[in-house]
Amino acid sequence: QIDHFGFDENRTFQQRYLVADQHWKKDSGPILFYTGNEGDIEWFCNNTGFMWDVAEELNAMLVFAEHRYYGESLPFGNESFSDSKHLNYLTSEQALADFAVLVEYLKMTVAGAQHSPVIAIGGSYGGMLAAWFRMKYPHVVAGALAASAPIWQFGDLVPCGTFFSVVTNDFKKSGTGCSESIRNSWKAINHLSSTDAGLQWLSNTFHLCSPLKTLQDAVILKNWLSETWVNLAMVNYPYKADFLQPLPAWPIQEVCKFLKDPSLSDKLLLQNVFQAVNLYYNYTGEASCLDVSQTATKSLGEMGWYYQACTEMVMPLCTDGVHDMFEPSKWDFDAFSEECYSMWGVRPRLSWILSMYGGKNISSHSNIIFSNGGLDPWSAGGVTRNISNSLVAVVIPDGAHHLDLRSRNPLDPKSVQQARAMEICLMKEWIEKARHSH
Amino acid sequence: QIDHFGFDENRTFQQRYLVADQHWKKDSGPILFYTGNEGDIEWFCNNTGFMWDVAEELNAMLVFAEHRYYGESLPFGNESFSDSKHLNYLTSEQALADFAVLVEYLKMTVAGAQHSPVIAIGGSYGGMLAAWFRMKYPHVVAGALAASAPIWQFGDLVPCGTFFSVVTNDFKKSGTGCSESIRNSWKAINHLSSTDAGLQWLSNTFHLCSPLKTLQDAVILKNWLSETWVNLAMVNYPYKADFLQPLPAWPIQEVCKFLKDPSLSDKLLLQNVFQAVNLYYNYTGEASCLDVSQTATKSLGEMGWYYQACTEMVMPLCTDGVHDMFEPSKWDFDAFSEECYSMWGVRPRLSWILSMYGGKNISSHSNIIFSNGGLDPWSAGGVTRNISNSLVAVVIPDGAHHLDLRSRNPLDPKSVQQARAMEICLMKEWIEKARHSH
Repeated sequence: QIDHFGFDENRTFQQRYLVADQHWKKDSGPILFYTGNEGDIEWFCNNTGFMWDVAEELNAMLVFAEHRYYGESLPFGNESFSDSKHLNYLTSEQALADFAVLVEYLKMTVAGAQHSPVIAIGGSYGGMLAAWFRMKYPHVVAGALAASAPIWQFGDLVPCGTFFSVVTNDFKKSGTGCSESIRNSWKAINHLSSTDAGLQWLSNTFHLCSPLKTLQDAVILKNWLSETWVNLAMVNYPYKADFLQPLPAWPIQEVCKFLKDPSLSDKLLLQNVFQAVNLYYNYTGEASCLDVSQTATKSLGEMGWYYQACTEMVMPLCTDGVHDMFEPSKWDFDAFSEECYSMWGVRPRLSWILSMYGGKNISSHSNIIFSNGGLDPWSAGGVTRNISNSLVAVVIPDGAHHLDLRSRNPLDPKSVQQARAMEICLMKEWIEKARHSH
Repeated sequence: QIDHFGFDENRTFQQRYLVADQHWKKDSGPILFYTGNEGDIEWFCNNTGFMWDVAEELNAMLVFAEHRYYGESLPFGNESFSDSKHLNYLTSEQALADFAVLVEYLKMTVAGAQHSPVIAIGGSYGGMLAAWFRMKYPHVVAGALAASAPIWQFGDLVPCGTFFSVVTNDFKKSGTGCSESIRNSWKAINHLSSTDAGLQWLSNTFHLCSPLKTLQDAVILKNWLSETWVNLAMVNYPYKADFLQPLPAWPIQEVCKFLKDPSLSDKLLLQNVFQAVNLYYNYTGEASCLDVSQTATKSLGEMGWYYQACTEMVMPLCTDGVHDMFEPSKWDFDAFSEECYSMWGVRPRLSWILSMYGGKNISSHSNIIFSNGGLDPWSAGGVTRNISNSLVAVVIPDGAHHLDLRSRNPLDPKSVQQARAMEICLMKEWIEKARHSH
């Protein structure tokens, strides 16, 4: 159903989902249901090794459901992003309804699945969806593992600056002079971008695919750099990995090797900054130039997420340059709203997500694990303390963005091994209870 | 917000709500929040004496919120019912979102209300809304009293025939020959309506405002009579009352005084049936003729409810003429769907309400009282057994449709007095708990 919440639009669309049932025990084995987030479901399927690792132990069927408007699950095909009319059905509520209807469909049509307990699993926005799925449809899912889900990064539930101070701490811890070098880089760019010669020097030094021509282009360069530091904080994994980009183990430590001396002259400092970001964008050595319009894998649906951020998923973020290494930037809702209106023809609603999902008042729900990595900037908006016996927080001090959802690895820190063990233990409890109650 | 679940329609509308705060204790007293159903909120306000009776004891503020598309809360004014585009926002989900946003608005703007525990109260469809409000927005309401709420009158959760067998039992118990007389009346009408003379006799005998002209008109007459018997079952109160119509105490007993002999000839039988329905429609003696297009107060929004029944609120009902006193009539979804499509341009979705609100799998929720009257046909789809310690069923054997929500009356049977006492006790518990948790 394209619109679950209205009856005037009665058309349907095809939602993609992936199933792996080689370890599933008919009639009793549970279903681990990945609540797809803002991207191609195959990519998430290939980056959620945890589910594959536990399938045998739990005799579980794995289902990966693609989120509407991403990957191949486009309600109006190529027209899906054409205007605000076609985008109207891109909301978390519609996505959760898709998931609920899909689970019920599977239970009805897959022989032996009728009484299988279902557990929702997701990371990041998908982690929010997993938690919200359990909150809103507890009759459909027995519990949820919400990994690195910043369900409190809304309204004024958490300070808007914490996110960037977590990023900054990651760099501070990873090498002497590192965060200071980045903090000093903004002024250096500002100096150089005030002249044409400086802009050209920047374009050459950063090996940019399209040269910078105006002061506005320099702002884009700075935003691109900021996003790069944020992304590095998200994927600061303890082993070689390829999530947003192919990277070595502990990539921030590698990056910081180039950023030891914050007191260098503008040009020397920025040459080092280039070396640092080049490690992120060109670890394989295949990039002939760097593209400031792209910071991560193309498997993520940036357009869709931009629309969602411009409607329900408004996450206030800010920097002050003191508690973080970024240029000071206040959270400006009005400016953001204008940007959204000119881009999509819609306005964000700040408080709706709080009205809908309860903000911090979620204690009457049950069976949700909120896991967060101490290195992950999104932990700033995450649930990092137990709310009740059955709303449990798991903190992984050495973990970046949903490290626990990744495949087991010999280089895994103990904290993530313990986190996974606890998650499996709780999931088993939910499965047992669901079986008995049936 | 006209559309809570989409951002393309960004207009707002004015929702009416009534507030009574003369007994409210600022800063600690609770809010009793009436979840308005399919009608004018003033009418519900005047027919929910229970809330007025307990306001002082609980130091409570009363709020009566009007349901969108009813009374004066019309999203598009006079255009609201013009077509399926304008009707698109008439759903229970939108109504619940209205309620959630309204409660949050009141808490933010009424001095001393910020930490007031809120309890949802409603009857019939409003009772369903109260229960669903607690299920979906437990962060907004601490508990719900769902009076005569047939939340299971959907899909195949209960047999479709029970509803009419409850009606039949009410008549059976209220006078010898009563239900038999009604069961025999259908054939009598069928005989008479096969000739023009017979149709005219029926029109005269029933004092109809517009005479019957065709066989199809006779079907309308029979449907009108059926609805009248159902309505009598709903308002079979132990004292003189004016809910759907002004009526004496125990109206079915009064009606049955005319229906003692089921073996009379067609015409004599139907003359008695007229006397019976005339008591329902003309107890005040003011009606000069009877109108087969109207069976209850005009304060109910029949158009709106018809649309809702044609979309989400599909309640399968059927009769067999054996376990009930009605003409046999199977539940025919396809025919109903066609009727809905020609009337409103929309098709009902049978299973959506089950996917959304969980059907019988609601045990993970808490703090809901489901009260049901043994005389009320809607109890057939109600929750009449405890589901858990905090999902409590209250049965009132001598009660009709949400008798417990009516004002205290000297003629109240003991069962409803006990029911109210229990409801108050549980509400006090919820209020206490909510205070402590805050």
